[in-house]
Amino acid sequence: MRTVELLPDRVRMIDQRRLPAELVHLELTDHRGVAEAIRSLAVRGAPAIGVTAAFGLVLAARELAADPAGIEDEADAIARLEIVAEELRRTRPTAVNLFWAIDRMLDKARAVAAGAFAQSPGDPGGALRRIADALTAEAQAMADEDVATNRAIGRHGQALLPDGAGVLTHCNTGSLACVDYGTALGVIRAAHGAGKGIHVYVDETRPVLQGARLTAWELVQDGIPATLITDNMAGWLMRQGRVQAVIVGADRVAANGDVANKIGTYGLAVLAKEHGIPFYVAAPVSTIDLQLPSGEQIPIEQRRGEEVTHPGGVRVAPDGIAVWNPAFDVTPGDLISAIVTDRGVLRAPYRPALAALLDSRSRSERGGASSHA
Amino acid sequence: MRTVELLPDRVRMIDQRRLPAELVHLELTDHRGVAEAIRSLAVRGAPAIGVTAAFGLVLAARELAADPAGIEDEADAIARLEIVAEELRRTRPTAVNLFWAIDRMLDKARAVAAGAFAQSPGDPGGALRRIADALTAEAQAMADEDVATNRAIGRHGQALLPDGAGVLTHCNTGSLACVDYGTALGVIRAAHGAGKGIHVYVDETRPVLQGARLTAWELVQDGIPATLITDNMAGWLMRQGRVQAVIVGADRVAANGDVANKIGTYGLAVLAKEHGIPFYVAAPVSTIDLQLPSGEQIPIEQRRGEEVTHPGGVRVAPDGIAVWNPAFDVTPGDLISAIVTDRGVLRAPYRPALAALLDSRSRSERGGASSHA
Repeated sequence: MRTVELLPDRVRMIDQRRLPAELVHLELTDHRGVAEAIRSLAVRGAPAIGVTAAFGLVLAARELAADPAGIEDEADAIARLEIVAEELRRTRPTAVNLFWAIDRMLDKARAVAAGAFAQSPGDPGGALRRIADALTAEAQAMADEDVATNRAIGRHGQALLPDGAGVLTHCNTGSLACVDYGTALGVIRAAHGAGKGIHVYVDETRPVLQGARLTAWELVQDGIPATLITDNMAGWLMRQGRVQAVIVGADRVAANGDVANKIGTYGLAVLAKEHGIPFYVAAPVSTIDLQLPSGEQIPIEQRRGEEVTHPGGVRVAPDGIAVWNPAFDVTPGDLISAIVTDRGVLRAPYRPALAALLDSRSRSERGGASSHA
Repeated sequence: MRTVELLPDRVRMIDQRRLPAELVHLELTDHRGVAEAIRSLAVRGAPAIGVTAAFGLVLAARELAADPAGIEDEADAIARLEIVAEELRRTRPTAVNLFWAIDRMLDKARAVAAGAFAQSPGDPGGALRRIADALTAEAQAMADEDVATNRAIGRHGQALLPDGAGVLTHCNTGSLACVDYGTALGVIRAAHGAGKGIHVYVDETRPVLQGARLTAWELVQDGIPATLITDNMAGWLMRQGRVQAVIVGADRVAANGDVANKIGTYGLAVLAKEHGIPFYVAAPVSTIDLQLPSGEQIPIEQRRGEEVTHPGGVRVAPDGIAVWNPAFDVTPGDLISAIVTDRGVLRAPYRPALAALLDSRSRSERGGASSHA
């Protein structure tokens, strides 16, 4: 079952706000609904929101094809799609996959727009249908690539986890954070599948409880041995000798290996260092942002205080208390033992390692190969 | 307003499980209700449960006085009180104040029992009333001393907090954890009262949310500037340079300065060390247990998984997930910058400092002075 799917007339996604109490789907027929689903965390996780935003652009292109009023040429078409792209970009500021996916879709639209209008002279609706079809194919490819990418991350990463290891993870990096399988949780799935006998410790991940609600649910569904803890137990758990590796996902990786990820990740990395436990980050190449020299430039989303004051939807804190609620933090590369990508495992120094990885990737793309094959 | 009070016919306490939604009191007329209130966290906090248990013993003594059947002499009376004491001891295993308070009450009962029976020949009910009166006076003194002790901790500790400091605290160590005023929160109150312009950061303190529910409530009531965070934000907050000191309470201090306190304390101490931030523990002398050579011997209470799976009373985790729920952890003395007691501020090496403190205390007690004056 995929977290998010593109159907002929709509986008269908698991409403992650309702898990684990019930498994229900949202059916969205326009890009505005898709943007709201991303903003409200009905869908979350860097890879998943990238693909979801791409699906949102497909819905927008289909809508333009059905009602092409005011669109006369490819410039008009691209301008309209860029407005939608901007709306989708503004939903979440931190994860770079969102921007990566939107840019990839706009590039595809620009690449086919002139030809589409040339092939449908005097018929903007026909041209827009051709553009929508091309975007549909691109977005579907992106979704399929995401699953293949995660399986590659799993293959590379599972070798890092020793037999019988206690593995601590944070937030949700599983099927629900992606189209399917997962990044850090994909590594755990691969290690479990390889018969390594690992035991997963799941940080509940306040304030939105993605660990308790989503990761725990995925692990129970898959029958992988797992224990839920509150975030503040992680240090004491490590002190007991019960954690042999920490593995987390990433929302953005800067050029020097600094990693933005769910709030709490930085503290875990410090604790892992103190206890001599390796700290791994699992992320697709699309999460790497060489435009940013370091993590200091990564924008950190601040979210509403109600996420903190109302766990599970019930108010627990008094009226009048101020709240600080950054959704992410930045872990310096020097606290990260390795970054596991779909193209292999990187070790420090990360700046040259990441640059070489993306350089080889762009060379292979110029050669026509898919980066996610 | 005191957290817990002994009235002529009952014990009256704030039901802390209902805060901050509503301020309601429990009225308990026998020691069984008192034991259940401690067990169920209606009252919590090491100093508060010590005094509450003492009040429970008073209720038991009054009950015996009202119905002295089967009690013929002081040995019978003490035996019956020891049964109640054992029931009260079994409510919470970690905080030593509980055992300290119960032992102090039993010592008082033993000291007055022979005299009471001698003064009321053939009238066990009268003798038991004398014992109950002595225990009432002792428990009331303990409650009054607790407030004086906390004010002394506040005076000693506030000097450690710089002007304008961001001060991070964990759990609740305020009025609600004590009879009134608080230990670590007493230090914060004293610094605020001294006009230092401090800003308090409050860890919400999962799983039971004593920070969000109780500490935030006390700070809002007192108008002390404060911001609530989830526990996993503490590291990132420190990294932003917003924390100049961490101060927490203690449930038990071992002879070498290892400190058992609310789960999450150990992780905070590691994070403080990493960021060069002083980490202080505030605790009354009654929290010090020289019988235990180190923190390794401190029993750590494991609590029900529902505290983790049902924040705010609402289930958030899936059926079938295992839970680890230690209520406390142990912070090694070498991570602690100072231990603030009612008799002054101790610095490492803690073993000689703690031994000297308790030795001078027992000498002054032999001399007739109160240790909490």
